[in-house]
Amino acid sequence: MAEDPRRPFDVFSGACPSREVLEHVTSRWGSLTLAALSPEPARFGELRRCVDGVSDKMLSQTLKALEADGLVERHVQSTLPPNVDYRLTPNGETVAAAVKQLILALYAVMPEVMESKAQSA
Amino acid sequence: MAEDPRRPFDVFSGACPSREVLEHVTSRWGSLTLAALSPEPARFGELRRCVDGVSDKMLSQTLKALEADGLVERHVQSTLPPNVDYRLTPNGETVAAAVKQLILALYAVMPEVMESKAQSA
Repeated sequence: MAEDPRRPFDVFSGACPSREVLEHVTSRWGSLTLAALSPEPARFGELRRCVDGVSDKMLSQTLKALEADGLVERHVQSTLPPNVDYRLTPNGETVAAAVKQLILALYAVMPEVMESKAQSA
Repeated sequence: MAEDPRRPFDVFSGACPSREVLEHVTSRWGSLTLAALSPEPARFGELRRCVDGVSDKMLSQTLKALEADGLVERHVQSTLPPNVDYRLTPNGETVAAAVKQLILALYAVMPEVMESKAQSA
């Protein structure tokens, strides 16, 4: 991937702030959480059921990192009891759309990936 | 992300083989390695220098996982000494293109992400 000297960000550099955000977005649970929040907001329990295998603790950490990055918003409706859900910000939508495209690209190659894994096993 | 009953793969399911491949592709070093191999093949040392922070061991593990998935190919030219490089397969190109789009989406939102991080710090 060619570097563009006009671009101030470079994920290949360990010191670039984009590296850390890439890690949040592509973490074990980050990419699935972003994809699960698109296109509809979801409550914590809904997310947990959707993202098979995530623990309460990991989902909570993942959401906090994505919130601090401004990609996810915790939305509290002041009902009784309060109704809390998580939704993508516009920037979160941009990133989640790219994550979903990556997942679709994977689905497209999965049949051959499975053949390859069977051969190399 | 809506499920499509016609689609046999579902990354949200922990048991689906696509989950494991997503983890290879989005691992700490997997996404950077795929992006670094596009569009040109690279030697191990070149990759290591490009992907700042990766160790020999982690790069080697990352390349092995991507090779077993059929996304990366180890190419040996029988020169003396043998010239070894790593290159994307056509499926690897498909996935790497999506990874690069994700990185570009991140770059696009990074200025606002950095503002958000400054506010939440």
